[in-house]
Amino acid sequence: MATVKLLSDQEAAAIPAVQAVFDDIRATRKTDFINNFWRALANDPANLKRVWETLKSVMTVEGGAIDPLTREMIYIAVSTANACQYCIQSHTAAARARGMTDAQHGELLTIIGLAAQTNHLALAMQVPSDPEFEVP
Amino acid sequence: MATVKLLSDQEAAAIPAVQAVFDDIRATRKTDFINNFWRALANDPANLKRVWETLKSVMTVEGGAIDPLTREMIYIAVSTANACQYCIQSHTAAARARGMTDAQHGELLTIIGLAAQTNHLALAMQVPSDPEFEVP
Amino acid sequence: MATVKLLSDQEAAAIPAVQAVFDDIRATRKTDFINNFWRALANDPANLKRVWETLKSVMTVEGGAIDPLTREMIYIAVSTANACQYCIQSHTAAARARGMTDAQHGELLTIIGLAAQTNHLALAMQVPSDPEFEVP
Amino acid sequence: MATVKLLSDQEAAAIPAVQAVFDDIRATRKTDFINNFWRALANDPANLKRVWETLKSVMTVEGGAIDPLTREMIYIAVSTANACQYCIQSHTAAARARGMTDAQHGELLTIIGLAAQTNHLALAMQVPSDPEFEVP
Amino acid sequence: MATVKLLSDQEAAAIPAVQAVFDDIRATRKTDFINNFWRALANDPANLKRVWETLKSVMTVEGGAIDPLTREMIYIAVSTANACQYCIQSHTAAARARGMTDAQHGELLTIIGLAAQTNHLALAMQVPSDPEFEVP
Amino acid sequence: MATVKLLSDQEAAAIPAVQAVFDDIRATRKTDFINNFWRALANDPANLKRVWETLKSVMTVEGGAIDPLTREMIYIAVSTANACQYCIQSHTAAARARGMTDAQHGELLTIIGLAAQTNHLALAMQVPSDPEFEVP
Repeated sequence: MATVKLLSDQEAAAIPAVQAVFDDIRATRKTDFINNFWRALANDPANLKRVWETLKSVMTVEGGAIDPLTREMIYIAVSTANACQYCIQSHTAAARARGMTDAQHGELLTIIGLAAQTNHLALAMQVPSDPEFEVP
Repeated sequence: MATVKLLSDQEAAAIPAVQAVFDDIRATRKTDFINNFWRALANDPANLKRVWETLKSVMTVEGGAIDPLTREMIYIAVSTANACQYCIQSHTAAARARGMTDAQHGELLTIIGLAAQTNHLALAMQVPSDPEFEVP
Repeated sequence: MATVKLLSDQEAAAIPAVQAVFDDIRATRKTDFINNFWRALANDPANLKRVWETLKSVMTVEGGAIDPLTREMIYIAVSTANACQYCIQSHTAAARARGMTDAQHGELLTIIGLAAQTNHLALAMQVPSDPEFEVP
Repeated sequence: MATVKLLSDQEAAAIPAVQAVFDDIRATRKTDFINNFWRALANDPANLKRVWETLKSVMTVEGGAIDPLTREMIYIAVSTANACQYCIQSHTAAARARGMTDAQHGELLTIIGLAAQTNHLALAMQVPSDPEFEVP
Repeated sequence: MATVKLLSDQEAAAIPAVQAVFDDIRATRKTDFINNFWRALANDPANLKRVWETLKSVMTVEGGAIDPLTREMIYIAVSTANACQYCIQSHTAAARARGMTDAQHGELLTIIGLAAQTNHLALAMQVPSDPEFEVP
Repeated sequence: MATVKLLSDQEAAAIPAVQAVFDDIRATRKTDFINNFWRALANDPANLKRVWETLKSVMTVEGGAIDPLTREMIYIAVSTANACQYCIQSHTAAARARGMTDAQHGELLTIIGLAAQTNHLALAMQVPSDPEFEVP
């Protein structure tokens, strides 16, 4: 049950600042589909624009130091630890669209689960830092 | 301030099940260094063995579907969202040891920050799932 | 899918300690509506009473140092970071009932998202404290 | 123990994109003090600029719908639930600088604690949404 | 909306490594019922086997230092703080199956809520460690 | 670095409402030691009283449905998942004071780690509820 209204295409068209972002999402992603996250965020056109522009530059840039599929897998990892159901679903779909295989998905889940396990063990034991980890 | 004792090499040597794991850590990692996480976990030899064997098979396996550096970056992502200071420090050191560049580290942090931002936005707006995300 | 039964008005009426709290909720809030949180908590009358009395004194007190709408916005912020869907929904409704405008809601979400982003960045970089932050 | 280097003023001066942000932080905040968060983030000048510009526009804007002190209190609430020690310290200092009284701080902490308590209760009981919370 | 397929009995039967785990789950738990967690995890037979064997040895072992019902209550506590809805539901059902009474459930929820409250208070106040807590 | 002052015995003595709680802590726990959590919370005498009275009634009550050591272990579990370092340290000390053996501590940590692992797996896979978990 959303806490804000989801803007329809007709409602978006009535707000030029929203329409401009929706146009750019469609052009950038080469699809007519606008997912619910943007329809919800469109209630605040300034934040819609800011978040979309950051996401576009971070997640769709060509020639970055981390390849696009890896970026999506990192996104899934954070979203899982933050228990964001919508984000897990949308970024798993995005990772598949970028070519994530079942084997890669399986390994990703295994690493996420293992990290969570050792995170909790290290916290519960309050393990002190090793000086060897110091940044040179 | 740790909640358990950290076992010294001498104390580990007195418990064969611990010594066997410490030997395997040294052989697998080709270093004499045993970091504090294992020295803390050594208070429970059965769990030490189980966690080490899982970590060894997940994080050091050759020829997996996800390359070793990417595995460490996913680990950092989960550890950050779980606020595990020790894990962030140890896996950042591990990622550097596997060749993570400053540019890759910068992009990793940017993606983690962005994911956290949209995770919180999607949660606060309680965005409903899009049917398009359904697994085929 | 709840892990406890939700008590109906009839079931509540059969337990005097529950009925007394339900009566007080209705009198304090000037409405007949008892939301599901209290119907679930009513399985443990002692905890129902304790939580309601704390919530009543913290959230509905007149003349506090923080105004009632701000209190609800803080509640939403915590509930989002804790990924409590029910709490996000109920306290967003409560904030609207106390007069939260769309502009305020938009700014609240923007701040929550930004805080989450910098929280994760500061954690991932393990930024050390500045002595300037020391309490005088 | 930071996972990145903290840039000194001299190191920042050698990178024009960093120097420009540091100059703007000093001008905006009317102080010579640059806290460690920005010195750490300066390792990635593009992200430094993006995060600073967002933070400046969200947290220091005049005439927003939420007053500046309330913004800092919301920031503290999110940072607490995300267990970001540095953020809790820096934004508590910022809130005090904006006039937060001891009474307001006390109420803020009380609300954060209460919200966390009911968040966990609602999650543990898996309380279902009330239709009354629906956005009109 | 799951991000992986849930394997039916027929699909599981076609993969010997999955069938072997499903057989062991049924034999260990003395029921024909396989819950959705295992049907989802079965997409990765190696992780299915690893997680099941750990869970079997940790949660169903006879004669451990912590009794089986207490183990399930600890599991509920962690799952609540991690906001894992499925886990809260499944382990509450498991705790009931192991004899958890309504009074025990009520006390468990009360402790979880109180711990969350003081966790957030201690974090927000950044309370320093007491030397008295040092492990001898 | 605390965000509030820690009240000394002398400062506490100057505020009757604080002194009364400190007296009750000492009488209830049969020790002169007041740990830093209460010295920090004492900045807000009303919340100090409320939290102490709840904690006293929940954690020290005789004849509850859950025994005192188990209560402390549940507290450690929640505190770990919430990454509250102070709480992990103080409640581990409390559990040891109530007789927690090394074997029990080891099993507790193992269960916490395993729960975290399956929490993250269930979240990442978005496993749907089983109707069998329904409360009768």
